[in-house]
Amino acid sequence: MNESTLINQLKQIFFCRSRETVVGPGDDCAVLEFGGKYLLAAADQVIKNVHYLPDTPPEQIASKLLKRNISDIAAMGGIPRWALLTMAVNGRSEEWFQRFFAGLEDCARSYGVDIAGGDLGSLPEDGDCLSLTILGEVDRNSLCLRKNAHPGDFIVVTGQLGNTFNSGHHLEFEPRLAEGRFLAENAFTGCMMDISDGLAADLPKLLAESGCGAEIQLEKIPCRNNCTWQQALSDGEDYELLFTAAADKCARLMECWPFAVPLSVIGIVNDKKSTLIYTENGRNVPEVGVGGYEHFKA
Amino acid sequence: MNESTLINQLKQIFFCRSRETVVGPGDDCAVLEFGGKYLLAAADQVIKNVHYLPDTPPEQIASKLLKRNISDIAAMGGIPRWALLTMAVNGRSEEWFQRFFAGLEDCARSYGVDIAGGDLGSLPEDGDCLSLTILGEVDRNSLCLRKNAHPGDFIVVTGQLGNTFNSGHHLEFEPRLAEGRFLAENAFTGCMMDISDGLAADLPKLLAESGCGAEIQLEKIPCRNNCTWQQALSDGEDYELLFTAAADKCARLMECWPFAVPLSVIGIVNDKKSTLIYTENGRNVPEVGVGGYEHFKA
Repeated sequence: MNESTLINQLKQIFFCRSRETVVGPGDDCAVLEFGGKYLLAAADQVIKNVHYLPDTPPEQIASKLLKRNISDIAAMGGIPRWALLTMAVNGRSEEWFQRFFAGLEDCARSYGVDIAGGDLGSLPEDGDCLSLTILGEVDRNSLCLRKNAHPGDFIVVTGQLGNTFNSGHHLEFEPRLAEGRFLAENAFTGCMMDISDGLAADLPKLLAESGCGAEIQLEKIPCRNNCTWQQALSDGEDYELLFTAAADKCARLMECWPFAVPLSVIGIVNDKKSTLIYTENGRNVPEVGVGGYEHFKA
Repeated sequence: MNESTLINQLKQIFFCRSRETVVGPGDDCAVLEFGGKYLLAAADQVIKNVHYLPDTPPEQIASKLLKRNISDIAAMGGIPRWALLTMAVNGRSEEWFQRFFAGLEDCARSYGVDIAGGDLGSLPEDGDCLSLTILGEVDRNSLCLRKNAHPGDFIVVTGQLGNTFNSGHHLEFEPRLAEGRFLAENAFTGCMMDISDGLAADLPKLLAESGCGAEIQLEKIPCRNNCTWQQALSDGEDYELLFTAAADKCARLMECWPFAVPLSVIGIVNDKKSTLIYTENGRNVPEVGVGGYEHFKA
């Protein structure tokens, strides 16, 4: 059983009964109506030897944990507000904790997040397991959901993809928060997600929610450090935004995009349900040979 | 370094910058003003071989994880609404997952909670590390905080304390949600917490926040299955409510308490800052010989 299979099963098990649960499991964040506003909530974790090495500086572990959650807020067009942290650790020194917390606070301050609570526990075996819940807000008119792609929309990514581990990008990335808000608040897109498991794994989730297919032009993919397409498609931890935009909006967007990070149109949404085709200079590439990155195997 | 020391350090590191952060780290829940209402948020975890045994039925693991978080909502006088789950596991079968999720959904339904999101990861070593964030709401006039005890208040607990592991209570407990709301909404108390680390560990947290001391009458402590005072004071995982009430309110409360679970007045708050005295039939017991239960050692 892989993560996607399990999540599909979960959607059948977990029934959101409250009409204030605007969006339940399956998007980058849950959307919860509270006090007449839209609250965003997402939870994500980092695990030693899965998401970082044992000797990764604790400040970088902390900032990675917070930033990957902020990336989920960015993908909804939202603003992060609060975070809650649970830590299960074994064999870490007092100095390690101090540095972890100082790094977390630095990162939280720079994104306007308050660390509002949490819990500390000990793992019986060697390891760290660190989980963070992010809470944010979004204007209900700016909300971006995976289900909102339409045939004919262009498929756009921010930044570059792939080569995330060797380049250090998986630690040093900046969540595309200002970029996400700009896209959402100016109605350039209503359909966005962040790329955390690799484009080849994440794009199908967006297409499935939208009931669409897509064609991706491999030669248009922005490859970090000239990495291969396979890497750009399958390395996890890009934390770039993937969104769709109607052709006319996309043209206007390219003219007024105020950020340093580049935008790349890499393909087009079509009406062939759940079919993802890769092409190179107009010719089909039937065997790209990637399946995306799965954090979870059971 | 123990958990309390670390949490005290955290309070100095983490600065809540937003005026919407009504209560930050250090109470049972954070209190966050959102859309003009008070949102409650808390995060807690369960870890294999720390909070349950490897062969504990997955349904019970799931319900324990949710219920211990709901107990934090109860302690604020609130209502639970949503939960987010992160799971880091190793070596669990598909059947184990199905039973875990079915158990979680059953428990969530019975408390009116929607499971709104989460994340699945794999631990590189044997183990489970399961974290849940609960979100709830509370009327701002009913909010109960640890800092609101006053000298002369009676100290009251619900239910019975101690012998939590052998009795199975640590899995089968019911969070005192209706009881907490009754106490808060009828203004019998404005100072409440749940007992999760043992009375001897938890009461000092409440007293420290309130700047008070207390005298506890050992003979008044309701001991589960006639366990010893040491057990009643130091066994973790009671998930009972500990609250303070002015003498006149406490008298009225005893007359109108509508629940089956008993209330016990076990002591009195005084103005001797941070001093906790135990007595037995009026005589001081200087060496009770317990320090409470610490989930965390570093």
